[in-house]
Amino acid sequence: MKFSNFAARFDDDSGIVQLMDDLGSAMSKDSDLLMLGGGNPSHIPIVQEHLKKPLSRLIETPALFSSVIGNYDSPQGNSDFIDSMVEMINKKYDWGINSKNVALTIGSQSAFFFLFNMLAGEYEDGTYKKILLPITPEYIGYSDVGLTPDLFYSYRPKIEKLNDRFFKYRIDFDKLEIKKNTAAMCVSRPTNPTGNVLTDDEMSKLFSLAELNKIPLIVDNAYGEPFPSIIFTKTKPLWNKNTIFCMSLSKVGMPGVRTGIVIANDSIIKTIRNMNAAINLATANFGPMIANDLVRSGDLVRLSTEEIKPYYKNKMEHAISIIRREFSDIDYYIHVPEGAIFLWLWLPNLNITSDDLYERLKIRGVLIISGSHFFPGLVGGWKHQKQCLRITYSMEKNVVEKGIATIADEIRSI
Amino acid sequence: MKFSNFAARFDDDSGIVQLMDDLGSAMSKDSDLLMLGGGNPSHIPIVQEHLKKPLSRLIETPALFSSVIGNYDSPQGNSDFIDSMVEMINKKYDWGINSKNVALTIGSQSAFFFLFNMLAGEYEDGTYKKILLPITPEYIGYSDVGLTPDLFYSYRPKIEKLNDRFFKYRIDFDKLEIKKNTAAMCVSRPTNPTGNVLTDDEMSKLFSLAELNKIPLIVDNAYGEPFPSIIFTKTKPLWNKNTIFCMSLSKVGMPGVRTGIVIANDSIIKTIRNMNAAINLATANFGPMIANDLVRSGDLVRLSTEEIKPYYKNKMEHAISIIRREFSDIDYYIHVPEGAIFLWLWLPNLNITSDDLYERLKIRGVLIISGSHFFPGLVGGWKHQKQCLRITYSMEKNVVEKGIATIADEIRSI
Repeated sequence: MKFSNFAARFDDDSGIVQLMDDLGSAMSKDSDLLMLGGGNPSHIPIVQEHLKKPLSRLIETPALFSSVIGNYDSPQGNSDFIDSMVEMINKKYDWGINSKNVALTIGSQSAFFFLFNMLAGEYEDGTYKKILLPITPEYIGYSDVGLTPDLFYSYRPKIEKLNDRFFKYRIDFDKLEIKKNTAAMCVSRPTNPTGNVLTDDEMSKLFSLAELNKIPLIVDNAYGEPFPSIIFTKTKPLWNKNTIFCMSLSKVGMPGVRTGIVIANDSIIKTIRNMNAAINLATANFGPMIANDLVRSGDLVRLSTEEIKPYYKNKMEHAISIIRREFSDIDYYIHVPEGAIFLWLWLPNLNITSDDLYERLKIRGVLIISGSHFFPGLVGGWKHQKQCLRITYSMEKNVVEKGIATIADEIRSI
Repeated sequence: MKFSNFAARFDDDSGIVQLMDDLGSAMSKDSDLLMLGGGNPSHIPIVQEHLKKPLSRLIETPALFSSVIGNYDSPQGNSDFIDSMVEMINKKYDWGINSKNVALTIGSQSAFFFLFNMLAGEYEDGTYKKILLPITPEYIGYSDVGLTPDLFYSYRPKIEKLNDRFFKYRIDFDKLEIKKNTAAMCVSRPTNPTGNVLTDDEMSKLFSLAELNKIPLIVDNAYGEPFPSIIFTKTKPLWNKNTIFCMSLSKVGMPGVRTGIVIANDSIIKTIRNMNAAINLATANFGPMIANDLVRSGDLVRLSTEEIKPYYKNKMEHAISIIRREFSDIDYYIHVPEGAIFLWLWLPNLNITSDDLYERLKIRGVLIISGSHFFPGLVGGWKHQKQCLRITYSMEKNVVEKGIATIADEIRSI
């Protein structure tokens, strides 16, 4: 069957299709696959207990049950939850936002689809604008959301080698160029896939550049504070009317509810509302209605700092220790794990591509993601792009151990 | 702020934005508005009881709870639910489908966004294809989903006047033309907004035309059988590999879960899966996981026939009787109400536009939808387009009564 140019872009080779398909197979109940590829958060028992309570209340309170299951919400998203978010954010960060600055989406991915295509692409005056990713590697999910090709341009990072086979990517501000057709900048912080956390200094430079050039700065805060706070460095979240701050309920432990949160100026929020209505009619109710109680009580923020953050820090340290043990005779580097739920492994002497390594590991029952998918908009070819792997450490410890041992074994066998 | 051409299309004047915004305001807890505009299904107590049971089971069974809230599902949608749908459909209709013929979406609206833009729009060979709506009035939600303008072309219906101020729209097959650039045909059946049910004879003609011209026929079955069965005529649902059959959990009483179901050939299903992954990452879990038990047990189909259908039939008859009473001195016609949850009122002597009437009624606290929004793709201008209203009868009887009385009063005052 033949499809439109638009549909032709969503083919099976897309990184995100491969990832979500692998993830679906691995999460299905009969699977023996060792899934070190996906972004599925852990099922943390104490967090799940806390999520269960408001859900039970939704079932037991007839008016709430009727509403959560039986009503279309307004396209901007559940207004009670938006009000709770506004109150919490203002109290914690003093951003001075109001309910016109917040919209919900069907997960963060939908927010990026809306935002990138709202800001970049063709304009009435004939210009074609692009999203600038100041640093790569950057999130795999951005690559395929463009309605038009070449929606991004991006730069290589500076690589700073640290002790103990650690390294850190830094934005190469000397190279960074805001062009006439730059629509907006976007960074994920903590960065998916690298676990990098851009420093407050780097962020403040990006803020100034955005301000100076009158373009929005999109901050993808899926792993940051105030929730889920899977971030191991001290940072200060900033916002102004030029900032588009994107959050999600997924990494708190609720990817199944599909709820993204966007904080931005009212003109952007209104456009998201309209896109929600036209493309999805309404957002999903369970996410905001479960989270509302937890935001209002402060539990979501407290759980994030006291339970979720230490839980993943422990997982991360365990995964690092396994890599140290299994990779002792391999030349490898690890990006300093400052947040998110991934380790980013750099194998400078790998003499097959990371795509080939992905395929070989898949045959052995271990799923990782080839680093090559994480350089949206980067041109020029750079061998580093084929030398990296993203490894998730959110799964059970024995899965992580077996998986990493198999990866090391496979690399040795090349 | 300036936005891309794509974003500029989602402005506040869009019918669906107006509708969903009105609906959100009216459904918010403090509202006194009489909402006769929206498509929100009723909260039928016995149905809600049946929905509560599987939801309670999800909470009480730890593995299910972890999964419904804590897992990304695969981008094709929950495989257990897909299997249940396949089994139920084959048993009931003998369509011979398998799991590769079914995908879930974030509500039906998202399915139409995917389908229309996958089939119509620009093609590699430079052609620009369009969706043919064989009959208007047709669903308001189609109008704004096109990524490119002019995605539709459509035809006026034949109007057949019946007894008792009833009339029925029929497809004007003499005028209908399948063009070289026709991508697909689409009909909603029962039709939103008119409550029309295309006859089996009309459907079989559309099937033949689709077959002959090798284009898909999209059937929007949001109100049809096997669920929610809000259809008051006897019909036979048909499917072949050329048919794209779209269903939804919304009108069963679950619009809050955002679950659409598409049954089509595997090439279309694969493309929907890929679009789900790239644009939404995954579908929402609560809908399919609640409905799975009910599809498997046969309860969803039974509830639809034994509870939902008679419930709305009763509502419809009540609304008709109120119109008869309140409109006795007004020149009006009602489309025969054969399904869905709306009455379609035609006021041939209205001497303001239906858009103006909408505004005047909104000031008086009654929300309806102006008929003008329901003619996507129709060119040439037709006064009939400005003479109709869509009135929802799913709300409480006293809301319907007060609302209809106010509409009559306002029309009289013009």
